[in-house]
Amino acid sequence: MSTPNALISSLPQHVGSPVTVRGWVTHLRSSGKIAFIVLRDGTGILQCVLVKNQLPAEVWAGFAELTQESCVAVTGEVRAEARAPGGHEMGVTGLELLGASPVDYPIQPKEHGVDFLLDQRHLWLRAPRQVAILRIRHEIEQAIHDFFYEREFVHVDTPILTAAIGERSGLFSTEYFDQGNAYLAQTGQLYGEAAAAALGRIYTFGPTFRAEKSKTRRHLTEFWMIEPEMAFYDTHDNMRLQEDLVSHIVRRVLDRRPSELAELERDVSMLEKVVAPFPRIDYGDAVITLQGKGSAIQWGDDLGAEDESLLVADYHSPIFICNYPKEAKAFYMKENPDDPRTVLCNDCLAPEGYGEIIGGSQREDDHDKLLQRIHEEKLPVDAYGWYLDQRKYGTFVHSGFGIGLERTVAWICGTPHIRECIPFPRMMHRLYP
Amino acid sequence: MSTPNALISSLPQHVGSPVTVRGWVTHLRSSGKIAFIVLRDGTGILQCVLVKNQLPAEVWAGFAELTQESCVAVTGEVRAEARAPGGHEMGVTGLELLGASPVDYPIQPKEHGVDFLLDQRHLWLRAPRQVAILRIRHEIEQAIHDFFYEREFVHVDTPILTAAIGERSGLFSTEYFDQGNAYLAQTGQLYGEAAAAALGRIYTFGPTFRAEKSKTRRHLTEFWMIEPEMAFYDTHDNMRLQEDLVSHIVRRVLDRRPSELAELERDVSMLEKVVAPFPRIDYGDAVITLQGKGSAIQWGDDLGAEDESLLVADYHSPIFICNYPKEAKAFYMKENPDDPRTVLCNDCLAPEGYGEIIGGSQREDDHDKLLQRIHEEKLPVDAYGWYLDQRKYGTFVHSGFGIGLERTVAWICGTPHIRECIPFPRMMHRLYP
Repeated sequence: MSTPNALISSLPQHVGSPVTVRGWVTHLRSSGKIAFIVLRDGTGILQCVLVKNQLPAEVWAGFAELTQESCVAVTGEVRAEARAPGGHEMGVTGLELLGASPVDYPIQPKEHGVDFLLDQRHLWLRAPRQVAILRIRHEIEQAIHDFFYEREFVHVDTPILTAAIGERSGLFSTEYFDQGNAYLAQTGQLYGEAAAAALGRIYTFGPTFRAEKSKTRRHLTEFWMIEPEMAFYDTHDNMRLQEDLVSHIVRRVLDRRPSELAELERDVSMLEKVVAPFPRIDYGDAVITLQGKGSAIQWGDDLGAEDESLLVADYHSPIFICNYPKEAKAFYMKENPDDPRTVLCNDCLAPEGYGEIIGGSQREDDHDKLLQRIHEEKLPVDAYGWYLDQRKYGTFVHSGFGIGLERTVAWICGTPHIRECIPFPRMMHRLYP
Repeated sequence: MSTPNALISSLPQHVGSPVTVRGWVTHLRSSGKIAFIVLRDGTGILQCVLVKNQLPAEVWAGFAELTQESCVAVTGEVRAEARAPGGHEMGVTGLELLGASPVDYPIQPKEHGVDFLLDQRHLWLRAPRQVAILRIRHEIEQAIHDFFYEREFVHVDTPILTAAIGERSGLFSTEYFDQGNAYLAQTGQLYGEAAAAALGRIYTFGPTFRAEKSKTRRHLTEFWMIEPEMAFYDTHDNMRLQEDLVSHIVRRVLDRRPSELAELERDVSMLEKVVAPFPRIDYGDAVITLQGKGSAIQWGDDLGAEDESLLVADYHSPIFICNYPKEAKAFYMKENPDDPRTVLCNDCLAPEGYGEIIGGSQREDDHDKLLQRIHEEKLPVDAYGWYLDQRKYGTFVHSGFGIGLERTVAWICGTPHIRECIPFPRMMHRLYP
């Protein structure tokens, strides 16, 4: 064939000329004289029209051999057609079957249970809703890289295989040659702090692991996290960066992925309201507000998912809850000089009940206070020797945070369960495919 | 202080005005009447000049308390000074010690052994050479993301925790709840192929793992790989994409990281020669050439590191070696219809002896041939059921490759050992810090 190959996303540039599009059949329909193929190629959806009395017999006959998920090359002229998905359709002159698909394709146009769909995840990815989520996930990822690149942050890849540091429970472990066990990192933060002393402002972007028996809609055993760490940022600078990042991500998806948001039937009016600055609510005030709303929470308790929902109900944008009690948070957070029962930290809660997407804090930069906290938490001091070195040799005010990628995708896509927000989810009972 | 804070990289915009720069001391020098502080903040190096008879006594006295790696805030007017590193210096009017550093800072301005430096990796990162490598690494990463984003590829994160698939030997394993063992992924490719059937053109970007007892300068147990996978690309399309990517990366680093390349004393004239297209050398021809150069290689052998060096010696750009014998390569590579002893694949060898940076192939898209290869290699057929599904339901011509990030960084930086090309290297005897 001498016609040029084209992606469906590029068809507006080809209106009026013949092209060949290669892809997979999603729907077939025929009246006996006119037939329709709906094709997907990963970049879009194309309606192809075959008119029997305008086609060679073998082309018309080829239509009858097609099934859902057949891989085909269709050739014809592209024309604008407002009623077609994507706004264009093709008048077919040629049809070639590249790869047949037996009629037992597991995912049929009907309702399937989620366990079945997860078993077929490698095929489920082909569904329009899953394609839309993954394209939005990518847009968010690129938006994050661009945000930090423009601000001269350095991307730093922290190790996955680590000696025993970080949060202690729920670690996956593996034998590591003659070095004993290695543990899969739950966070890159401690390494990020070392890198911030070298590079000033950095961010990590990688998979993190929790061997926890959680079966909620907000937990995966393997998930991706972005963890910026900034020298000379205090807790207020830290929150300003968080709200700038989150509003940047949302704006970018609204601007560049409108058709994917439409595919997901996302109410974008809610996303349009995500504009910095976000409200800051002191933990102590949050407790009083929650008690007023009937929660049994007491000062000192961590916020549960229900408490979070009660709090965000009053807001349309994400909110920060600031300065939690020391006992509810990690050992490395800096003591609050205005109230030493608390630490200089914040969670960022997404609106619409999507819950926590960010946890951040100013880091304890006092060597002796940090050492004391390590002892109090009964952590292995030897393993933290290198981490303490950041406080020994030229200690510096610094802050950072972790934003959970799948939780952010779930919120922006309006997807209640994060298992659809990563290509191949890993959960307690799910390691395949 | 009311002077604005500034990063060293931004000082050209502040010439003639007072600013405060925060960072760490790298060098100190004093004549008794005039003193110099060389400061680093991760974005650059700044020479600060203190003149005793122009300063309050307490500022001059503060200089005497400084040591290597002290964290300080210096305030003063920025002026152009061609002889200073970075082209600017500061006339200091104020000096504040933010974080002292004891005189036992482990890394002194002298030669240290590499094992010692790796033990101190968290501090070694602060050295100018390491900062330059990490900034170039980031530039390469962003160049890769931008390259694929502009071409409408979708970034897909493939799982790290997998059931037993992919290459078989050298797997790290971990207990996975009641699911038996999970294995750390050696490649994301097989998942990438499934994603290509959904999204057309994709790339992965993540850590991969090899539990191999290799102690060469080109092996890590944990390294980062980028693996594009493209529907409807044959092996020739695949190589064109590879040379476009590699030349894009090199051009970008040359354009945007000249000072880092200068810090590394990299001979950029060699990098300037990296322009697509790259020579393609058939494996069979390579064997004949090598035999002519005295190698003992026989048709059917894989190329060793010495063979690779002999071949690249004739070229200034990277080269492709194409269509290796089937036995030397992985089971999923497509049989070469012109010579069924071989497969449609390529390695890309960097010039200057840096060796293989890319391995790529057209994938076997014939279900029965792939199944036969799985049996021949005695791989567990059950574990590959989902992978075979790509060939069952609408099989399609597709190709992909994997580019090793650290090897690419090592080549572009001119660093012989890849252990300096990742923030925290993991090797057989190295799991700390």
